[in-house]
Amino acid sequence: MYELAINLKPDEKTPLYEQIYEYIRSEIRDGHISSGEKLPSTRALSRCLDVSRSTVELAYEQLLSEGYIEAQPCRGYFAAQIDGLYQIQRQNRSTKKKDSKGEKKYTYDFTPNGVDLKSFPYNVWRKLSRECLMDDRAELFRLGSPKGEWGLRNAISSYLHQARGVNCTPEQIIVGAGNDYLMMLLCAIIGTRHRVALENPTYRQAYRLFSNLSCEVCTVDMDAKGMRVDRLETSGADIAFVMPSHQYPLGTVMPIKRRIELLGWADGGQDRYIIEDDYDSEFRYKGKPIPALQGYDGKGRVIYIGTFSKSIAPAIRMSYMVLPENLCRMYEERCGFISSTVSKVDQLILQRFIEEGYYERHLNKMRALYKNRHDTLLAALRDWDAGFTVSGENAGVHLLLHFHDGRSEEELIRLAAGKGVKVYGLSEYYVKGSKDRKEAVILLGYANMNEEKIKNAADLLKEAWKNK
Amino acid sequence: MYELAINLKPDEKTPLYEQIYEYIRSEIRDGHISSGEKLPSTRALSRCLDVSRSTVELAYEQLLSEGYIEAQPCRGYFAAQIDGLYQIQRQNRSTKKKDSKGEKKYTYDFTPNGVDLKSFPYNVWRKLSRECLMDDRAELFRLGSPKGEWGLRNAISSYLHQARGVNCTPEQIIVGAGNDYLMMLLCAIIGTRHRVALENPTYRQAYRLFSNLSCEVCTVDMDAKGMRVDRLETSGADIAFVMPSHQYPLGTVMPIKRRIELLGWADGGQDRYIIEDDYDSEFRYKGKPIPALQGYDGKGRVIYIGTFSKSIAPAIRMSYMVLPENLCRMYEERCGFISSTVSKVDQLILQRFIEEGYYERHLNKMRALYKNRHDTLLAALRDWDAGFTVSGENAGVHLLLHFHDGRSEEELIRLAAGKGVKVYGLSEYYVKGSKDRKEAVILLGYANMNEEKIKNAADLLKEAWKNK
Repeated sequence: MYELAINLKPDEKTPLYEQIYEYIRSEIRDGHISSGEKLPSTRALSRCLDVSRSTVELAYEQLLSEGYIEAQPCRGYFAAQIDGLYQIQRQNRSTKKKDSKGEKKYTYDFTPNGVDLKSFPYNVWRKLSRECLMDDRAELFRLGSPKGEWGLRNAISSYLHQARGVNCTPEQIIVGAGNDYLMMLLCAIIGTRHRVALENPTYRQAYRLFSNLSCEVCTVDMDAKGMRVDRLETSGADIAFVMPSHQYPLGTVMPIKRRIELLGWADGGQDRYIIEDDYDSEFRYKGKPIPALQGYDGKGRVIYIGTFSKSIAPAIRMSYMVLPENLCRMYEERCGFISSTVSKVDQLILQRFIEEGYYERHLNKMRALYKNRHDTLLAALRDWDAGFTVSGENAGVHLLLHFHDGRSEEELIRLAAGKGVKVYGLSEYYVKGSKDRKEAVILLGYANMNEEKIKNAADLLKEAWKNK
Repeated sequence: MYELAINLKPDEKTPLYEQIYEYIRSEIRDGHISSGEKLPSTRALSRCLDVSRSTVELAYEQLLSEGYIEAQPCRGYFAAQIDGLYQIQRQNRSTKKKDSKGEKKYTYDFTPNGVDLKSFPYNVWRKLSRECLMDDRAELFRLGSPKGEWGLRNAISSYLHQARGVNCTPEQIIVGAGNDYLMMLLCAIIGTRHRVALENPTYRQAYRLFSNLSCEVCTVDMDAKGMRVDRLETSGADIAFVMPSHQYPLGTVMPIKRRIELLGWADGGQDRYIIEDDYDSEFRYKGKPIPALQGYDGKGRVIYIGTFSKSIAPAIRMSYMVLPENLCRMYEERCGFISSTVSKVDQLILQRFIEEGYYERHLNKMRALYKNRHDTLLAALRDWDAGFTVSGENAGVHLLLHFHDGRSEEELIRLAAGKGVKVYGLSEYYVKGSKDRKEAVILLGYANMNEEKIKNAADLLKEAWKNK
């Protein structure tokens, strides 16, 4: 029997079953597992890799259905003849293959988009999910309200009021399956004859989404206070997409003066709106949380978007949007018939998670956890002589390193990669104009790494970046 | 203490907690519960109404948060002073109030959009959901594939191949949170510079969606074989939205000749596509299932859309779309970055539900159940002397009654309502041109009623519609 030496990476984006699948597939393709050779049983392999049996089964099923292995009743799984198969599979999977090849060489990944999922409250979620499924039965599976269930919207509105200073009733809230969906819905509500201004650098997913939904899109430069309102005024935009509480990726907090200017801009023209993406304001490690821009808006100009992807888990697919009252009416008229995108069971689980205090406790726990990682990384960076300054401290889940020693982002990224550490350049967040930038800025996300890993990775970076 | 005599209607669209909430609210508003009066405890009321305690708690919470009742620690709930509150609440809730008032007078509702949820496989769903949450932990809450999880797409592709004759690989499938979302996504993939033709009468939700997403929309008349291809040709449309296996609402099955003509139309112009909405083809009570149009398509012209809303439950929010290969490429380019709208847990539950044979068993059970209701309703209609003929038999979950005695749909609906029976006129499914129609057609959906109810309701209709 063939012995599998798979080096699983639970922190990678690629699911475990896919890692197993890809490993075995490449072993078969490369001839390391020869045709007719027996593979370990799913039970044996799951024990050996310390993963659930269903994960291995999933990998085997995929290999089976693609013809790489064959099942023989009562005997087990065997590598199949693969002549001819190779071409077809390569076509279908070429992009995926590239990705996984590209990621293989990194021991540490400072992704700024990480979420620590080891701390997900599995037991509570399981308990609530069990309880919800016990309840009411038919009611839970009947089509719900297009906006989301009233109970969840009520819980969100209380949370937003207390934690974020947002003024709204549950009637103004629309629950949807992720920010991308809510942005698509918003475009359907307000129509696509708008010009949307985004900060530069920005969350590029939003930029792509607006431009693919046939909106006109432009970028507006930032200064230390956030989006420049004078430039916004001359941009011709009627919608401004901003992240005032913690700009992504720069980490800028928009001060009250700029906020008032921004609200003034919105009030100065017909049908101007501000989209406030409040994506990770839960994570602030110093002082009081920054209240949402929406709370200062007396004229119904701010569309507030929040998500549970960062604060609970990306895969639960629940976000929400708070519409000003005039847009609520437009929503009812134009999109009120569009069915909700979140299952009622999931909504009920989340509602109880919030109402029964688990959400607050979870946030406190994550805040403490991320703060420790933040502090560890900051401390590890402090005593270097590499010529950089740090920004973006005390909030979010990443830091920015500004280099002034003439080295380029590409060089710094390459040097880090040479030590097996993946870091990210600020350039990729710029929509245009990044060529003009003189400064090299590196992003280090710390949500996904424990303190030991952070220390080790920082040591490697120090070694990689030391000035010779 | 005030005694509550709430007549709950579990079959209504309005959730139970909302029915309780609305009843108590109106009792307080109308002065039947006076200010300061004590309400029953949640425990007592849940026992008395035979609903779960959380349902009553939800109703009370809503009343509390809107200020209709007050909680006094260790004493219970009391009706509040409501002076001044009335105006605000009426504004916010005016549409909802209208709906619930309008529905109150019906004892039986022949809605054609019903799904029997008493037969939902609660125990299996609960078991699978428990098992899925035991597994893998972090993996389940990490962001998944934008198209949906491979395992689920694989299960759907096998099902579609076997049950519907659809030719596709898992790579062509996109899982999404409901048909409305998938249609929005489709518009983002192909852009909105299209003219979409729908059958007339049709599924009006689709019509509204396309027109609100800024597509040009038109309707094309049907004959006994479905959408007329000659009229489609002259309509100037480049996209045809059809339901060939069981047209909604007419129940027409498109014969093979018309299908080939339709595919010929699609092949006769640049970038022409057919959207095949295969919404309830699972329910056919005579002969073999009608294979999907997609299976005949050799040129990559058919976009196939299917849903689990009808076959499992509306609130699970899972549908899927099969794209031809050229649109798959456009999807990857233009929308491949848009996150999935379905949670990974839900996808895994559904995958196992299909793979472990539960879906097939559930479909068989539902088919038998609906067939009995179909037969019961048909039998009950047979021995009348009311001047109508029946169509739409042997498939779906509704029948159509064509009246030739000069009475209008409005009159027939009014007569039925007089006996407490809600029936539906075909006119509301016509986008335009319904004025020209001479024939009065009534739709009777039977999915939501057991056989006894169907018999009783049919007796009432017979009485209501008898020719004097």
